[in-house]
Amino acid sequence: MEILGGPLFAVAGAGESHGPGVSTIVFGCPPGLLLERAAIQHFLDRRRPGSNKHGTPRREADTVLLLSGLYSEDHDTLLDGPQIAITHGDATAGTQSYARGYTTGEPIGALVLSTSQKSGDYSQFAGERGAVRPGHTDLVKHYKSQGYVDVRGGGRSSYRSTISDVVGGSIARLFLNSRFATGILSSIIQVGPLKAQRTLADAVAQFGNAQAGADALAALDVAMAGAEIPALDSAFAAEAAELIKRTRIAGDSLGAVVEVVAVNVPPLLGDPLYQSLKLRLMGALGGLNAVQGVEIGAGFAAAGRTGSANNDPIRSDGYQRNSHGGLIGGITTGMPLVLRVAFKPTSTITLPQQSVRKNLEEIDFALDKGRHDPCVGVRAGVTLESRIAIELMNALLMQQAQNLHTADFQLFPGAE
Amino acid sequence: MEILGGPLFAVAGAGESHGPGVSTIVFGCPPGLLLERAAIQHFLDRRRPGSNKHGTPRREADTVLLLSGLYSEDHDTLLDGPQIAITHGDATAGTQSYARGYTTGEPIGALVLSTSQKSGDYSQFAGERGAVRPGHTDLVKHYKSQGYVDVRGGGRSSYRSTISDVVGGSIARLFLNSRFATGILSSIIQVGPLKAQRTLADAVAQFGNAQAGADALAALDVAMAGAEIPALDSAFAAEAAELIKRTRIAGDSLGAVVEVVAVNVPPLLGDPLYQSLKLRLMGALGGLNAVQGVEIGAGFAAAGRTGSANNDPIRSDGYQRNSHGGLIGGITTGMPLVLRVAFKPTSTITLPQQSVRKNLEEIDFALDKGRHDPCVGVRAGVTLESRIAIELMNALLMQQAQNLHTADFQLFPGAE
Amino acid sequence: MEILGGPLFAVAGAGESHGPGVSTIVFGCPPGLLLERAAIQHFLDRRRPGSNKHGTPRREADTVLLLSGLYSEDHDTLLDGPQIAITHGDATAGTQSYARGYTTGEPIGALVLSTSQKSGDYSQFAGERGAVRPGHTDLVKHYKSQGYVDVRGGGRSSYRSTISDVVGGSIARLFLNSRFATGILSSIIQVGPLKAQRTLADAVAQFGNAQAGADALAALDVAMAGAEIPALDSAFAAEAAELIKRTRIAGDSLGAVVEVVAVNVPPLLGDPLYQSLKLRLMGALGGLNAVQGVEIGAGFAAAGRTGSANNDPIRSDGYQRNSHGGLIGGITTGMPLVLRVAFKPTSTITLPQQSVRKNLEEIDFALDKGRHDPCVGVRAGVTLESRIAIELMNALLMQQAQNLHTADFQLFPGAE
Amino acid sequence: MEILGGPLFAVAGAGESHGPGVSTIVFGCPPGLLLERAAIQHFLDRRRPGSNKHGTPRREADTVLLLSGLYSEDHDTLLDGPQIAITHGDATAGTQSYARGYTTGEPIGALVLSTSQKSGDYSQFAGERGAVRPGHTDLVKHYKSQGYVDVRGGGRSSYRSTISDVVGGSIARLFLNSRFATGILSSIIQVGPLKAQRTLADAVAQFGNAQAGADALAALDVAMAGAEIPALDSAFAAEAAELIKRTRIAGDSLGAVVEVVAVNVPPLLGDPLYQSLKLRLMGALGGLNAVQGVEIGAGFAAAGRTGSANNDPIRSDGYQRNSHGGLIGGITTGMPLVLRVAFKPTSTITLPQQSVRKNLEEIDFALDKGRHDPCVGVRAGVTLESRIAIELMNALLMQQAQNLHTADFQLFPGAE
Repeated sequence: MEILGGPLFAVAGAGESHGPGVSTIVFGCPPGLLLERAAIQHFLDRRRPGSNKHGTPRREADTVLLLSGLYSEDHDTLLDGPQIAITHGDATAGTQSYARGYTTGEPIGALVLSTSQKSGDYSQFAGERGAVRPGHTDLVKHYKSQGYVDVRGGGRSSYRSTISDVVGGSIARLFLNSRFATGILSSIIQVGPLKAQRTLADAVAQFGNAQAGADALAALDVAMAGAEIPALDSAFAAEAAELIKRTRIAGDSLGAVVEVVAVNVPPLLGDPLYQSLKLRLMGALGGLNAVQGVEIGAGFAAAGRTGSANNDPIRSDGYQRNSHGGLIGGITTGMPLVLRVAFKPTSTITLPQQSVRKNLEEIDFALDKGRHDPCVGVRAGVTLESRIAIELMNALLMQQAQNLHTADFQLFPGAE
Repeated sequence: MEILGGPLFAVAGAGESHGPGVSTIVFGCPPGLLLERAAIQHFLDRRRPGSNKHGTPRREADTVLLLSGLYSEDHDTLLDGPQIAITHGDATAGTQSYARGYTTGEPIGALVLSTSQKSGDYSQFAGERGAVRPGHTDLVKHYKSQGYVDVRGGGRSSYRSTISDVVGGSIARLFLNSRFATGILSSIIQVGPLKAQRTLADAVAQFGNAQAGADALAALDVAMAGAEIPALDSAFAAEAAELIKRTRIAGDSLGAVVEVVAVNVPPLLGDPLYQSLKLRLMGALGGLNAVQGVEIGAGFAAAGRTGSANNDPIRSDGYQRNSHGGLIGGITTGMPLVLRVAFKPTSTITLPQQSVRKNLEEIDFALDKGRHDPCVGVRAGVTLESRIAIELMNALLMQQAQNLHTADFQLFPGAE
Repeated sequence: MEILGGPLFAVAGAGESHGPGVSTIVFGCPPGLLLERAAIQHFLDRRRPGSNKHGTPRREADTVLLLSGLYSEDHDTLLDGPQIAITHGDATAGTQSYARGYTTGEPIGALVLSTSQKSGDYSQFAGERGAVRPGHTDLVKHYKSQGYVDVRGGGRSSYRSTISDVVGGSIARLFLNSRFATGILSSIIQVGPLKAQRTLADAVAQFGNAQAGADALAALDVAMAGAEIPALDSAFAAEAAELIKRTRIAGDSLGAVVEVVAVNVPPLLGDPLYQSLKLRLMGALGGLNAVQGVEIGAGFAAAGRTGSANNDPIRSDGYQRNSHGGLIGGITTGMPLVLRVAFKPTSTITLPQQSVRKNLEEIDFALDKGRHDPCVGVRAGVTLESRIAIELMNALLMQQAQNLHTADFQLFPGAE
Repeated sequence: MEILGGPLFAVAGAGESHGPGVSTIVFGCPPGLLLERAAIQHFLDRRRPGSNKHGTPRREADTVLLLSGLYSEDHDTLLDGPQIAITHGDATAGTQSYARGYTTGEPIGALVLSTSQKSGDYSQFAGERGAVRPGHTDLVKHYKSQGYVDVRGGGRSSYRSTISDVVGGSIARLFLNSRFATGILSSIIQVGPLKAQRTLADAVAQFGNAQAGADALAALDVAMAGAEIPALDSAFAAEAAELIKRTRIAGDSLGAVVEVVAVNVPPLLGDPLYQSLKLRLMGALGGLNAVQGVEIGAGFAAAGRTGSANNDPIRSDGYQRNSHGGLIGGITTGMPLVLRVAFKPTSTITLPQQSVRKNLEEIDFALDKGRHDPCVGVRAGVTLESRIAIELMNALLMQQAQNLHTADFQLFPGAE
């Protein structure tokens, strides 16, 4: 099943790169969260191709439609979302989608249509003689599906699938923020050979109590929002932007490292052992397309240390360092989550490469047309943040399930 | 998670009674099934309120939109489904949905909009002083959601949720039919005190080999399609129609029993023990809204028998009787599946009843307005068939997973 | 996966009829339940073959060993369970198992060895020419496993597998009883053509408030514990015992119906829709080996009723009747759960029957040796109760997960 | 649920560090694998504490008992496993466990008793004033379980839990090897600041066709088996052994990096997207206790590269490089899997550290007694290999499920 998170908070997705739209169902948001369509749209806008000039040139509005799971006695506001109309033969019928309501605990359906895709010319990739793009799933998907594969842009393997991640993650982070002032943010720290000097991990280490920490992180979010490259280190960002531009012109692409942090993470989340939050997060981030590595806290650097240097001292007000990165034994300590994720260079380049047709005839591969994002890391941050939010949310509900409050289970208190 | 079937073939649903639409994602259909939107629409039309005169007066076209999971090199046919347009502020954008293509193995997203729902007057049910409809989930859902409940028609607990069952079940039955000539059909055998004399179980016991059996069942399907009450026994159907009419006029409702059968069921499906196909089917049918009982094969009658009368003799050409109803030890034998499902009378009646407000103040309850379906069993058949198809399909894939064919796993056969 | 319940409270089982033992792992019991080995053994003793004279003659002590998931500072009491020793070659090593401790929230491992099984003579059933017992899984399991099947007594399909059901169910019911005074009990109400006049459903309808209801049910449990046939109606029980005896002598077997009830069930449990508690319970009970039908509340009788007769009136102190059987829309109302389960006659009889060898050669089948339980319903009650407890427990945790208590998530309250 | 892998091939575990034993249930091994207890014991012996002189001084035989899921007509061989006896009061009863048989497809139960644990003195860690060991889960588990925590050695969070990983992984790798000649092996490539010059990734890049590759890897396995430090680079191994010894004497510990590879991996495994094999492997390895980072193929180095340097050329005989590490888009390509895993230094050291009691009183923490493994990476390899095997096996069955062979579903071929 195509599901992120779960079993309690889970996000199901469907929709391929160039199909009519991406469907998302979000399960398990508790009742009572005031949810606004605009708040989800905000995060989707950060994910959107074309949201900065280094992204792919495809331009989609990516308007999210909320189709279920909300309610409010104020029907006018509830139903103030975009109108949807379908035309079938001569008949047209329509309805309003949701704009603002309280979650009911029932599943939240969302839809993002793909309204700007061109039918395009995919003949280069079609059939047994279709070309295989190096670094893409073209070849394995052709054989695993016995040839019944969507050749338009990679099907589900496209970055477009992450719309569902972001829709689900947005709901999770809004819930976590409303209940615990949890904040989640990412920053690019490496582009090709260039490395940033300032990191979010350092920044959040300075943050104080709950609300103050959330506020400080939110301020960083605003500060980075205007930047071409969303990095805390602006000198690095400028240099990276220049490098990306040169690389694009050269027909090549670049890898990147993104750091992602969360503050005011509820402590005590994360077992059982075989589904610990560390296992879930390492999988959720490490499994994203184009990711080749993931580390938490001190990460690979911890391998070079002694225990006396790596163990984080504890005082009555908490952990005094954060080599552990927010999780010990796979359970949250309340310290900031700190993870870093390595992205390979975008596989799509215009330089010629050795490849094959799907029937394994050898070819010199060159793209017939257009091109895409030269550094996928640049806009991956919001997806990483979203996946963290989804897993945190699920872990929160899992832990609550083990803390029984019998008073929650009453229906007729007057009954003898 | 709101999921039917699974883990291999599974149907996720979202969407409440009076919301903008019902979203469905179908996971795990293998690649290569030629799927037409019209074939799914056919089954949805059987489910639709207002599809016969005993249903609820609400009239919805229930046009299904296919949004992902299909492909065909013939883009014109692929994209010949209904057009969808969204209007947000001043901007309008749209796309075509799918009409006909091959499944790719990726999830199939579908959407059925609710285009005729009226905003209505739900003030009778709203808030702490809202009335509780006897037999409905109004009271328990109010308390379990801490009041954040959709009071318009029962939310997910509405029969409208079964759109997802039927969408998913349609794909499953089309696959099963294409590979095994499997046929699935239901017939009403009891309405209130009236009982049918002819049953599908008897009919299918006469059917011969695979294709002939499927053809015979299809002929019965066609024969019943025109009937007001979809029952094999036409005399019973006429009498039942008359009784339902009289009961509706009296402001009351009626229970029913529906029999559902499947022929050309692939044998050998159904373990492991704790998730046996019998467990799954009894749950999937017995768990449908308004169902109070379910039985398989000889059912409750088997309790009154001796083993020598109940054990089905076996000869070299198969089982000689079908007391077992198609499953032994929870595993398919290849004999027809035969199940019967008891539905309670529709809870919504116009006769006055003792009830409470949500704050538990006692009231004499009477509906302020309109009314609904006096016998829910009349149009439940296609949902039962769909749930059987979903579970059969999942069990089929589960069993295939245990039969390894190493030759299926090759990529570069020329490699040394 | 061979798992009952879940995802929050779940029971995994392994172990075939005549193998070395039955392994059970119970997941998700919250920390803090005081658990005694003897309390689990009590329920296992009710399940045990040979626990009454109508059961199979096989005699097993079925001593349960608890191997993990408990703790107590009092190590002497904690480790006062049976000693286990293994001998491998010349080496012998051993340990004590647990007797009494608090659950830690970590999984509880349990083992019941099969110490009295005889290696036996299974040549009648072995290989391609092995005989197929009518009504058993012999034939389907042979083909689905490509011949790699355990022919000793049916493997997992044996009633012996229910040891895991009872171990897991015992822990669930002890937890529910400790927190909500929940009580669960079953009674036989039909054996072949004989039907009981007094039922548990009638009895529990008289029970008052929480503790009193639990006490009354416990008293019935004690009253039935001494009976040869565990039925509330002692006249029926005596007549049924006589009938079973006669039938056994005649080489035949009998079906039965068992009623199972639960009182002081926590209300508000049971969504989402597609995994409602009704769906889960109908599956868990209906899916047990030899079960051919299951109904809840008014059951099949509801199909013959009008809505005005079937809807249960509601007053400020609760529901005034229980046609619904404890669940409305798949959600608990706090009224007693009432379900009835139809068992087919035991498939194993000594009368001759038409059957085949596994290679499909026709034979007249007669058992070469021994025989078994002539009425499987007689000792099935504790398994039904256990499966109800498992599903209730899981549903309880699922509902708690949706009721967030932010104060439960604190680690360093002194932190700024 | 405490489960690795799944839903098709899955391993359930139970058992805490100092409890009576570790229970394992392995689900989903297809029927027909010839399984010997000794083959599983071989891998458990590699995992065992005390299996080399750098491990913890605790000595356990870790004899595995197989309790279900096997069968063979040769009962003498089948039942030639260790004898198990239980003593309860005056009664002793026993049985033989399995030694060698064919898998039946039913779950395989296994038990490893903890026969040498000492009741020990855990008073340093018990209760509200119990000391918290830095780097361990003591504090979070105390609060998440409301104090009902096993203080003897960390409960499930102990390395002892990995017994289940290895039992399940052994069965998976035996199956994969028997069907595809798949081989899996690990080697230490970094200990503290020391780094190896020779790696498995380089070695396997030379391996040729299926059987030859498996043979070559097996030879490396044998070569490393005798080494104190299981590393391909013997000079590094010697230096590392010396450093570990010095560090242990100094009361400190060291981190490490382990590389793990697999050859003859079946291609085409690994979707759907949200449960891709990359996601699963990154989680399974990254989630193991003490792991702080995981990377695949080029890993973090890929972030510094251009696409033209990182994309692996394809010719008719396969991929010409392996920057991708065996997975593209989360799907196996048939190239060797190559992953590297960073372990933090063992948290248990004897040098004094700042810590707290569970009631948050500050203390200077020093272990009252004994000590453990100074470099956890040294014996972690077999667990990493096992987790890879479990996920590969599950992915294999998932892919087979999508490739239907209708001829596999026949029972009475002679039936008309």
